[in-house]
Amino acid sequence: MLTIADHQFQSRLFTGTGKFSNSKLMLDSIAASESQLTTLAMKRIDAKNGTDDLMQPLLDSGVKLLPNTSGARNAKEAIFAAELSRELFKTNWVKLEIHPDHRYLMPDPIETLQAAKELIGQGFVVLPYVHADPVLCCRLQEIGIHAVMPLGSPIGSNQGLVSEEFLKIIIEQAHVPVVVDAGIGAPSQAARALELGADAVLVNTAIASSSDPITMAKCFKYAVNAGRLAYEAGLGGISTRAHNTSPLTGFLHDSQLSPV
Amino acid sequence: MLTIADHQFQSRLFTGTGKFSNSKLMLDSIAASESQLTTLAMKRIDAKNGTDDLMQPLLDSGVKLLPNTSGARNAKEAIFAAELSRELFKTNWVKLEIHPDHRYLMPDPIETLQAAKELIGQGFVVLPYVHADPVLCCRLQEIGIHAVMPLGSPIGSNQGLVSEEFLKIIIEQAHVPVVVDAGIGAPSQAARALELGADAVLVNTAIASSSDPITMAKCFKYAVNAGRLAYEAGLGGISTRAHNTSPLTGFLHDSQLSPV
Amino acid sequence: MLTIADHQFQSRLFTGTGKFSNSKLMLDSIAASESQLTTLAMKRIDAKNGTDDLMQPLLDSGVKLLPNTSGARNAKEAIFAAELSRELFKTNWVKLEIHPDHRYLMPDPIETLQAAKELIGQGFVVLPYVHADPVLCCRLQEIGIHAVMPLGSPIGSNQGLVSEEFLKIIIEQAHVPVVVDAGIGAPSQAARALELGADAVLVNTAIASSSDPITMAKCFKYAVNAGRLAYEAGLGGISTRAHNTSPLTGFLHDSQLSPV
Amino acid sequence: MLTIADHQFQSRLFTGTGKFSNSKLMLDSIAASESQLTTLAMKRIDAKNGTDDLMQPLLDSGVKLLPNTSGARNAKEAIFAAELSRELFKTNWVKLEIHPDHRYLMPDPIETLQAAKELIGQGFVVLPYVHADPVLCCRLQEIGIHAVMPLGSPIGSNQGLVSEEFLKIIIEQAHVPVVVDAGIGAPSQAARALELGADAVLVNTAIASSSDPITMAKCFKYAVNAGRLAYEAGLGGISTRAHNTSPLTGFLHDSQLSPV
Repeated sequence: MLTIADHQFQSRLFTGTGKFSNSKLMLDSIAASESQLTTLAMKRIDAKNGTDDLMQPLLDSGVKLLPNTSGARNAKEAIFAAELSRELFKTNWVKLEIHPDHRYLMPDPIETLQAAKELIGQGFVVLPYVHADPVLCCRLQEIGIHAVMPLGSPIGSNQGLVSEEFLKIIIEQAHVPVVVDAGIGAPSQAARALELGADAVLVNTAIASSSDPITMAKCFKYAVNAGRLAYEAGLGGISTRAHNTSPLTGFLHDSQLSPV
Repeated sequence: MLTIADHQFQSRLFTGTGKFSNSKLMLDSIAASESQLTTLAMKRIDAKNGTDDLMQPLLDSGVKLLPNTSGARNAKEAIFAAELSRELFKTNWVKLEIHPDHRYLMPDPIETLQAAKELIGQGFVVLPYVHADPVLCCRLQEIGIHAVMPLGSPIGSNQGLVSEEFLKIIIEQAHVPVVVDAGIGAPSQAARALELGADAVLVNTAIASSSDPITMAKCFKYAVNAGRLAYEAGLGGISTRAHNTSPLTGFLHDSQLSPV
Repeated sequence: MLTIADHQFQSRLFTGTGKFSNSKLMLDSIAASESQLTTLAMKRIDAKNGTDDLMQPLLDSGVKLLPNTSGARNAKEAIFAAELSRELFKTNWVKLEIHPDHRYLMPDPIETLQAAKELIGQGFVVLPYVHADPVLCCRLQEIGIHAVMPLGSPIGSNQGLVSEEFLKIIIEQAHVPVVVDAGIGAPSQAARALELGADAVLVNTAIASSSDPITMAKCFKYAVNAGRLAYEAGLGGISTRAHNTSPLTGFLHDSQLSPV
Repeated sequence: MLTIADHQFQSRLFTGTGKFSNSKLMLDSIAASESQLTTLAMKRIDAKNGTDDLMQPLLDSGVKLLPNTSGARNAKEAIFAAELSRELFKTNWVKLEIHPDHRYLMPDPIETLQAAKELIGQGFVVLPYVHADPVLCCRLQEIGIHAVMPLGSPIGSNQGLVSEEFLKIIIEQAHVPVVVDAGIGAPSQAARALELGADAVLVNTAIASSSDPITMAKCFKYAVNAGRLAYEAGLGGISTRAHNTSPLTGFLHDSQLSPV
């Protein structure tokens, strides 16, 4: 079972709330995924309609909320967003996300470390979204973050694990859970992340932008289970030559044959 | 549901019987995989022990047997092996496998086409193991084979889908089921094959040589389900840039905030 | 030096004559490439202009002509095309190219072997264009072809060496020169083919469709030289961890320092 | 021509001085590469032999020296090393290299930014070695570094451009020269980096640890030229299907044929 801070998760599939065509579909997809943690951002309240038709059903569903600071361009904005979200969502968990560049949404290592320090000092449970940078992950661990969230590829790109070689190093060196975030576009890629030893994945776009989000949510659930179990059972090594799976010699010249 | 010849399969995971450390583990693993078709070769009968402790339990389990001609170096040997296996296993299904080279076990396109013609004439249901060669697959279809089994990578190498670009062409052009065979070493790779539109995969080494074959069999079951469902639901396109999943602008400067 | 049949080549870059915007550019590009063999197809003579403004300059340039059978859909058509080209170009060399499918132009293994047999019987020097199929390459060698031309990826796709793992096997097993043909879209890919041990590459589209074919021809010349020399000198092995290139320990605590 | 700070380079191949079996081979290899910049570290002076048999020949060769801070685990050590090297080598250029982890030698983004600020303040020309982190590269540019040196893969691993997708982003966004450093193990990989638009590459291990360093140095020279020229001439796009390079239709049914 996966433990982050003092919280236990049966599911290693984390989800997001963005990009769904409507709230019901989002709630049904998250339910189908059996995810127990979902990330969400803040937006302006509709002036004409102050009611909140999203958060309450999410809370009722029992899934843990992980507010994120998406949109923050530096530590100051991220800290402000975290403080607001703590009040609004009544949780001290935060996905720390700082990306000054809007084209690729790559995270800022310097501002992220600085904001993480401040937020940990304020008692937050901090899960920072970072590039697949092994040294940065180590430094964030040293200051007390509760999980690292390195990217597979740029957010929403569906490119999969282009950072795979660096994820392997991060997983080898990590003392906190490693949650691969961003860029996972297919169940096979989620399975691969878990096979490598990642503790969880966060998937949003690939589910939300599917033509059938509920089915796709189930796909990721199965794939994450498959990847984790395979990691635990142990995958075989890779070989450059063939190894026969069936007996190859002699049988054609024997008079007596039996199945193998 | 997958149909080959007149037979329907609920499961898109085909298995093999080779390389397991003992028969019980093989049977339990196949059961755990929920596979409904398994391939097997022939070997010499133990002179001291003519009883057959493998085939009967396999038959009792209800899984369909797919005898293979592994070990055959040319069409003549393969035809002979197929004829023997038909008698022995009481089935006219055959996985046609001709590999003159023992180092990489790559299949022979010429002998395979020739043997397929002969066996189809004899009333066999023929599933030929081939390189990921789109033209060869078309020609085999034209003479009436019932499924093609292109390789992902050399048998038992666990290298995965190194032939992916060619598998895509085969899948696009095929009029019979495409079963990706050989080289699949991890559940994520099986999922990927199904996501591409393959109709099934055959997995043997990756299950049999795992330190926990029963668990690994389940992993492949989940992964194949995930890949197939994802193919049906439709995967999103790949982008070279990022696409934000959370709203990015303005919220930090608004006094009223709500969850998104 | 590369020897095919009784002919020696200083250059390991083979070229083609298709897709250039005009004949002069084609001739200048081939000259810039320093290629000593170029392939060409046949087309209808312009009824109004029977003169041949292409072949004579090519012949004058000293480059060896390799007529191809592009457009042939089966052995019969290819043999007919080869016979015509022998008369027309006064050479018994032929690049045997049979692709029944116009979408991907993948070669037909069965017809290619059959045509190769016939043409060798007729005294041709045969270089067959084939999928990266190790067994087919062996069989073609056995009947006396003079070089094999396995593809990197579909013709004109610029995808590079997607067949790399199979090319390695072909190169390991070949007793005749291996010329990687089709799909090479960048000098780095040509270099890679030579680094793997291929004896030569054939490049056409990547040069002809460049906005600056003459410069691109030079690029491929340099890249092929680089790849071949590197193969001869021997590349280092690949490691999953780092190996420092500079001395790492102690120097900061020494009072006396010198350059390393 | 490549310009860094106020210095112009005809060659886009930078080299290193580590790992060569002897000084003469190192000097001859650098000469063969035609590299005009080479990086070097410091080590203890041999107590019995204070003479310096390396630096003088290097200086005499006319190649520009780029002292590096290899071995530094934090900003403080790197600054100290830079100050020492400025005195020792009579140059204010420095390759800033801070890697706290000895297993993978991955660079520290936080300490690197901090040291870069300090060294720029002291008048150094700073070329920092960094992970392929687009945001970090932007921030380093903002404080005035003169080139960025993102890695292809871990130092000395010969894995090539595993960071390729991130290098593309860095190259797109960079306002200073991008020098791909670390992990380049074959000429084809160096060519690829230049084709992507990198301004230069730094290669050390792949040359020094070759069984024939002088020849390998030449290979890299050719490959870098090929890659740069190809970038300037413009590579063609990649296609998922084939595009015939030779005319395909009709010729077999025409009575009059001419070469194409």
